[in-house]
Amino acid sequence: MNFASDNWAGAAPAVMSALSRHNSGFSPAYGTDPLTDSISRKFNDIFEREVAVFFVATGTAANALSLAALAKPGGAIFCHRDSHIHVDECNCPEFMTSGNKLVGISGSDGKYTPDQLREAMAAFPDGVVHHGQVASVSISQATESGTVYTLDEIAAIKEVARSRSVPLHMDGARFANALVTLGTTPAEMTWKAGVDVLSFGATKNGCWCAEAAVFFDPEAAKQFEYFRKRGGHLFSKSRFVAAQFDGYFEDGSWLATAAHANAMASQLAEGIRAQGGRTAWAVEANELFPILKRSQFEALEAAGAKLYEWPAKGLSENLAPKDDEVCLRMVTSFATTQDDVDAFLKVLSETA
Amino acid sequence: MNFASDNWAGAAPAVMSALSRHNSGFSPAYGTDPLTDSISRKFNDIFEREVAVFFVATGTAANALSLAALAKPGGAIFCHRDSHIHVDECNCPEFMTSGNKLVGISGSDGKYTPDQLREAMAAFPDGVVHHGQVASVSISQATESGTVYTLDEIAAIKEVARSRSVPLHMDGARFANALVTLGTTPAEMTWKAGVDVLSFGATKNGCWCAEAAVFFDPEAAKQFEYFRKRGGHLFSKSRFVAAQFDGYFEDGSWLATAAHANAMASQLAEGIRAQGGRTAWAVEANELFPILKRSQFEALEAAGAKLYEWPAKGLSENLAPKDDEVCLRMVTSFATTQDDVDAFLKVLSETA
Amino acid sequence: MNFASDNWAGAAPAVMSALSRHNSGFSPAYGTDPLTDSISRKFNDIFEREVAVFFVATGTAANALSLAALAKPGGAIFCHRDSHIHVDECNCPEFMTSGNKLVGISGSDGKYTPDQLREAMAAFPDGVVHHGQVASVSISQATESGTVYTLDEIAAIKEVARSRSVPLHMDGARFANALVTLGTTPAEMTWKAGVDVLSFGATKNGCWCAEAAVFFDPEAAKQFEYFRKRGGHLFSKSRFVAAQFDGYFEDGSWLATAAHANAMASQLAEGIRAQGGRTAWAVEANELFPILKRSQFEALEAAGAKLYEWPAKGLSENLAPKDDEVCLRMVTSFATTQDDVDAFLKVLSETA
Amino acid sequence: MNFASDNWAGAAPAVMSALSRHNSGFSPAYGTDPLTDSISRKFNDIFEREVAVFFVATGTAANALSLAALAKPGGAIFCHRDSHIHVDECNCPEFMTSGNKLVGISGSDGKYTPDQLREAMAAFPDGVVHHGQVASVSISQATESGTVYTLDEIAAIKEVARSRSVPLHMDGARFANALVTLGTTPAEMTWKAGVDVLSFGATKNGCWCAEAAVFFDPEAAKQFEYFRKRGGHLFSKSRFVAAQFDGYFEDGSWLATAAHANAMASQLAEGIRAQGGRTAWAVEANELFPILKRSQFEALEAAGAKLYEWPAKGLSENLAPKDDEVCLRMVTSFATTQDDVDAFLKVLSETA
Repeated sequence: MNFASDNWAGAAPAVMSALSRHNSGFSPAYGTDPLTDSISRKFNDIFEREVAVFFVATGTAANALSLAALAKPGGAIFCHRDSHIHVDECNCPEFMTSGNKLVGISGSDGKYTPDQLREAMAAFPDGVVHHGQVASVSISQATESGTVYTLDEIAAIKEVARSRSVPLHMDGARFANALVTLGTTPAEMTWKAGVDVLSFGATKNGCWCAEAAVFFDPEAAKQFEYFRKRGGHLFSKSRFVAAQFDGYFEDGSWLATAAHANAMASQLAEGIRAQGGRTAWAVEANELFPILKRSQFEALEAAGAKLYEWPAKGLSENLAPKDDEVCLRMVTSFATTQDDVDAFLKVLSETA
Repeated sequence: MNFASDNWAGAAPAVMSALSRHNSGFSPAYGTDPLTDSISRKFNDIFEREVAVFFVATGTAANALSLAALAKPGGAIFCHRDSHIHVDECNCPEFMTSGNKLVGISGSDGKYTPDQLREAMAAFPDGVVHHGQVASVSISQATESGTVYTLDEIAAIKEVARSRSVPLHMDGARFANALVTLGTTPAEMTWKAGVDVLSFGATKNGCWCAEAAVFFDPEAAKQFEYFRKRGGHLFSKSRFVAAQFDGYFEDGSWLATAAHANAMASQLAEGIRAQGGRTAWAVEANELFPILKRSQFEALEAAGAKLYEWPAKGLSENLAPKDDEVCLRMVTSFATTQDDVDAFLKVLSETA
Repeated sequence: MNFASDNWAGAAPAVMSALSRHNSGFSPAYGTDPLTDSISRKFNDIFEREVAVFFVATGTAANALSLAALAKPGGAIFCHRDSHIHVDECNCPEFMTSGNKLVGISGSDGKYTPDQLREAMAAFPDGVVHHGQVASVSISQATESGTVYTLDEIAAIKEVARSRSVPLHMDGARFANALVTLGTTPAEMTWKAGVDVLSFGATKNGCWCAEAAVFFDPEAAKQFEYFRKRGGHLFSKSRFVAAQFDGYFEDGSWLATAAHANAMASQLAEGIRAQGGRTAWAVEANELFPILKRSQFEALEAAGAKLYEWPAKGLSENLAPKDDEVCLRMVTSFATTQDDVDAFLKVLSETA
Repeated sequence: MNFASDNWAGAAPAVMSALSRHNSGFSPAYGTDPLTDSISRKFNDIFEREVAVFFVATGTAANALSLAALAKPGGAIFCHRDSHIHVDECNCPEFMTSGNKLVGISGSDGKYTPDQLREAMAAFPDGVVHHGQVASVSISQATESGTVYTLDEIAAIKEVARSRSVPLHMDGARFANALVTLGTTPAEMTWKAGVDVLSFGATKNGCWCAEAAVFFDPEAAKQFEYFRKRGGHLFSKSRFVAAQFDGYFEDGSWLATAAHANAMASQLAEGIRAQGGRTAWAVEANELFPILKRSQFEALEAAGAKLYEWPAKGLSENLAPKDDEVCLRMVTSFATTQDDVDAFLKVLSETA
């Protein structure tokens, strides 16, 4: 019953197998190997157009280096108040951008609206050097609250970004989960909706450490390889990242693992609701934030379940935890089993 | 006949096997897993004392983050003119240290002497704010020229560093190779000789991507975990780095692979000399820089050998390549076979 | 009728006179001149203890370099949401600190409370590397809203800072104005109340460009001269900053100019209230934020008054501007004349 | 007899007078005042074309911010080994460029040749990410050795820069002195010879603190105002910098002060040579490096002369100081008097 996080899992079988398969023999270093080349071209297929793609090994690197490529002196990066880049990366974005400021926007459900973005940007009028300048806009897909932006919502955010002539970045740490939720294509969910740069995450969904910065604007990509190397993020035995992607994409493995994780989360959410429980936000990907009785939480922990308390911010009065309740975070992954879901719901029903 | 680089190899069998072995099940993320803890303690055994050890995945990260932990505003880092940190890391050290300056010291054989270091430091007298201030001293072991500092040489360098109250960093990208060469212990080659911070490399010697910053001075280590995370170098599924080290250290695998690589390099060097050839520098680890007739180089390439031309700097007149000669770089590793060595020498003998 | 800003004035007569007086002859450069030495010691007298003082020429430099001296990798700086360091310095603090994050705290009247600070800091628990770490706390005295922290309020803020082991910085761009308001001593308003580092502003109160970073903690000051030079803020003809301070302090000139500015602001506020007007916040130093009828604002501008509209945030409903009203900012200085104050109030009375 | 440095002088009379003249009344802050506007346009006249000009107050700021505007991630800046940006600015260029590396080129007489530049650049081939990338080229005019690049020499340096598609920066800390030496125009000595960005120095030649970054390439200037503010180098009472330039340019004052300083240096050099002495390098501006008997140096110091020993590097054997000799640095300025020159030569003749 491990629902602690999708990064507590190891590598999915397809990924581990590809890693072994590509281990033998010699191969050029630092990203010049044929496998890296071949997998890079695979991204063109996935996104139905030519893209500039760069492999790194942590989501923080993918995000911060992408934002560095979009940075300006005195620049402001607009993101959700709870976004990973703002609260979970130890200022890596600030550091890699040489001091850009992250402007956290409030917003229910882990999303912010075009109006909220427009208002936040209004504090940075063009040409007022004191306040700095707008540099980029970032959204997370899926969000930190387990919700998913619709294509229309992304396009509307893009419109605001475009009105201030700044690019749109998407933190896709849970890209595949959101993709499966929307039942759309990678192209539709990114450049066709206005995304300029994507942090394409694969680690949480079954790799050891495989992430990619995907640029739909080749101009913005021009200096990226220098940012990556300057950050110490170019691997010598680079094929080991490409190999993970090879397994990840093989036979649609990545969509299957994401679909499985999402399904497990849905089952959990339905089971919780069936027993009169509720979740803080809609369960749209592989994260859920149930609000349970504290006694239930204790029973679950006693039964060996791994899940964490969560500081649920911004909930309406009727949603927010009562005195005897607690908001929790649960994350599912390719490694979550039906047995664990069943066991969890059984404990819950026994303590309802 | 692949002598291109030790990072053209994949992972050694013991490493790949450990990676598979540790793949199953859930494990806490971001370095809080039991395996990371256990392997960290293993470093205490290896170095015969308590050390502060931090895992990263690239040598550039290990170097630059270590130097960041030792940095000062306006600081100067003293290193060899040809060192990896100075010429091969795209200014990652400068960036991670917020602008420390790398002062490259000349020196034959890839090493510099205590006197050369003392003289270079003299340009930065204490308290003269214009020139900046001495911050740290770095040596590579083995060096970029394939040579190895003796324990006495390291201690002598340390004396100069101590006289200016700055710490000594060792770039140990080829630590195991040097260790085998000297036939000494990790403790003797580091803190007992005066090393304060070590970049412990394992990638070139059989891992996919496993490096460690090892601090013998706990005070200097205090902020390292923040530097690492700020640089995007803390892995979520961190056990995969620890797993590589587990295989690396198992049954002395790391010393065996280094010994093999060194032996292959020695055989090559001896074979070359036996045929009247010479090397630019003494062959003391797993790199050699033979000076061959250009016709021989062409024959070797025609026979499928992978090795590179090298701009041999600072050679004495009788050593330097003649008009019809070329200086080459060859690197051996755990993956170098006896067959390849024999084949290489055979081509050479046929073209002597 | 120029109430645009206290930095629209030139230099006060005592300052200009001192600058001329110290112009003749040769003097050592880069802060090693006798005048800089003598004025530095003058700061010991003013603060009734030994301090480490460093002259710079812009308030942004004083603030950002002070914060750099207190910075940590992944550090968080706690300040008011509207503080100068957060919204008016084009990310200079973020840049000089190599990416520290400014956490803006809401708070009425330009101040924040100990509880608000404590809550903001709670998002950065010790040892959680993802969120970064608490680095420093900053308050402005006087605040951006024209209010002044009492000694007790400063001490209470300090208590929270101390509970998290981080130093307290004071942005004293309008230090003299606050000092006069409180009728206290520089010592009482700074180190005796717990301030560790002070940006001592003199520019707005009668200098051309004279600011000082004053450290009450000598340990924190140790690297400052390198931060200053690394930032390009060490002047060659440094005596010209010291000369300004010489005139500034002469015969208590600095307290007289501040008292005058405060008195002018008080008169304006009283005159406005006498005519039934109101101010957004209490007028405690040399800034006031009157809420006037838009027609009055237009009449004032027509009469040649210089003052600006201000986006009054966080006002209670009965204070906030009505549809036909506008919130304005007015700043007084040594250069504000009684005639201008009278003329302003006359226009106001004619349009009441 | 003060020959310590041209920054030991105060402000020239025309500058001090202009500062007083522009002191009265109110004026918009932060560079939006009419005087700044008017003096900025004056630079168009001086350079016979439209330029983008930004005022700062230290030469280090002018240099480092200019180089920041030209920087690239992992960039290399090529300059003379002894240049101010490399050895006298406490890594401000490295810091402001977020870690560009300064590559110091050897060269006699304080200059380097096109061939030396080409060779230094060859270590940074295009597209080899490990080594970083060429970013900019910088020369000093006049040089740190008191020599002056001819127009042809500048143009030849530019050709090499152009061949690698990087811009040419000129550190003009002693711009006026070089201009007078060459008897040419500001346009000829800069953009017509290929200079893209100029640090226009005025402090050493008679201002308190007035420097300008002058961009001949408007594209490169686009972000400069943000770099300046981010560095804390935008002044609130900005007219005080403009006022200094107003006095500086009035009636050709700047050329007169430079001509005087150069003449004093020439007289000193001729006097020294007339007595059988020599200088380390040709005396072409307002610095000279005489090689005297140590006994003469002692006699001069005893007579009250201020001048410094200098580590004369790279001198040929017959030029270099003998055992009883010492190389000194002397700098003249607008404040150097004929009396002092005469007194100096008198002491020298008495000790010949």
